[in-house]
Amino acid sequence: MQIHSVKDALLYLGGRAVSDLKNIKLTIQYDGTQYSGWQIQKNATTISGILQAQLSRITKEDVKLIGASRTDAGVHALGQTAHFLTRCKIPPQKFSYVLNSVLPKDIVVGHSCEVPLSFHSRFDTVGKTYRYLISNSLFPSPLDRNRAYHVPQKLLFHEMQEACTLFSGTHDFSAFRAAKCGAISTIKTIQRIGLTKNHETLAMDVTGDGFLYNMVRIMVGTLIDVGLGKMASDEIRRILLAKDRRRAGRTSPGHGLYLMEVFY
Amino acid sequence: MQIHSVKDALLYLGGRAVSDLKNIKLTIQYDGTQYSGWQIQKNATTISGILQAQLSRITKEDVKLIGASRTDAGVHALGQTAHFLTRCKIPPQKFSYVLNSVLPKDIVVGHSCEVPLSFHSRFDTVGKTYRYLISNSLFPSPLDRNRAYHVPQKLLFHEMQEACTLFSGTHDFSAFRAAKCGAISTIKTIQRIGLTKNHETLAMDVTGDGFLYNMVRIMVGTLIDVGLGKMASDEIRRILLAKDRRRAGRTSPGHGLYLMEVFY
Repeated sequence: MQIHSVKDALLYLGGRAVSDLKNIKLTIQYDGTQYSGWQIQKNATTISGILQAQLSRITKEDVKLIGASRTDAGVHALGQTAHFLTRCKIPPQKFSYVLNSVLPKDIVVGHSCEVPLSFHSRFDTVGKTYRYLISNSLFPSPLDRNRAYHVPQKLLFHEMQEACTLFSGTHDFSAFRAAKCGAISTIKTIQRIGLTKNHETLAMDVTGDGFLYNMVRIMVGTLIDVGLGKMASDEIRRILLAKDRRRAGRTSPGHGLYLMEVFY
Repeated sequence: MQIHSVKDALLYLGGRAVSDLKNIKLTIQYDGTQYSGWQIQKNATTISGILQAQLSRITKEDVKLIGASRTDAGVHALGQTAHFLTRCKIPPQKFSYVLNSVLPKDIVVGHSCEVPLSFHSRFDTVGKTYRYLISNSLFPSPLDRNRAYHVPQKLLFHEMQEACTLFSGTHDFSAFRAAKCGAISTIKTIQRIGLTKNHETLAMDVTGDGFLYNMVRIMVGTLIDVGLGKMASDEIRRILLAKDRRRAGRTSPGHGLYLMEVFY
């Protein structure tokens, strides 16, 4: 029997004491370039697949690792979080060292610690911060390959900044989600959003209570339309109200996106 | 006969008009990870080797490309410059487009233009700016692999900053050059130097009129000794006066170094 949740664990353990069952939280960084995203898939190399296999090997248990965000192929993370239940005697804070000694160099566990058995990395999140990088140089920079979305055309930065602020607050983000998004509620709150420029790199930082599937990438695709002069900045307001995916911009590529932090 | 210099060109051309001979300057960016440095070597893949081969193919001439700085293996560049002489009819500013269409993605020519026949990318430099990145996190960040030198120990940042300023000005940098450095004068002037910190990344930016072989990397290695508390910050002053390589720190690895700009 796989231990997938506290309930499973209790069923499995029956009347036995749960005192030796631990819930371990990991904070994970990765360069997503070589992976088919976070979530385990058949016939594809994924970040959670690699982590879960190594954890199962280390603990000699059938570990089920659950992550806060199911990042897509090519998406990077500086602060992904995940948790798993184990009876393994390794001190919780040592899991990062043990894992980093066996993980490929593009996945690093920055921190591991014990959390209450009731903690769930995905369902307990109260917010996340994402960053999206756009490289706005004539030719793609060799040091930004797979790290930023290259847009060679001139972008109207101030118009993009203005448009950006219109996402702030609580809105129905139906127009900014992929067709296959299965979220029940499309109402989300953006607590903080901003667009900054450093030389030829534009960075959009966004913190919200939750994000629909591809929401950040569609927001960026729409901002780029504003930057290219294809769309007025205040059109964002109308797209939000229209709730029509077809009026928003294209989904910008995954390799510009970074999961920066998950809040609990 | 290879056209290596204006003198060669004039000899080659004899009494013919030189009006169709052009001197083209390139500004080049690269991710140095996959290369054995800038300078052409037998049995090794180098950045100038790849550029020169593509230029020879494009121009159907035996092009000799000369770069401003012979960066080592693993060293990156955002602003390397180089020049070559050609009679090819391609408009000078188009070389960047033509080259980028055939170059590997880790080498990009950001700009090409015609310069006077007398211009020499190496001998005419009046200064260069380098940046060195140190990643000071407990575990190496997957997004800084090959991009920053990972130092996991605690570093005394303010002591390093203090030590850094002691390099400023005109000094004999004999203690800060590799044994195989062939420079005639070891007196160099550092016009500007500074150490900054952004989260867990330390960046040393240095502009000088010239640099001895491995000078920046030995300066950084010495600053790290200061950061680790192995050396007092004002020891820099004594090492400069002693002119003894053995008293300076180790040569820090090439992959943290970036050639940012070359001045003429």
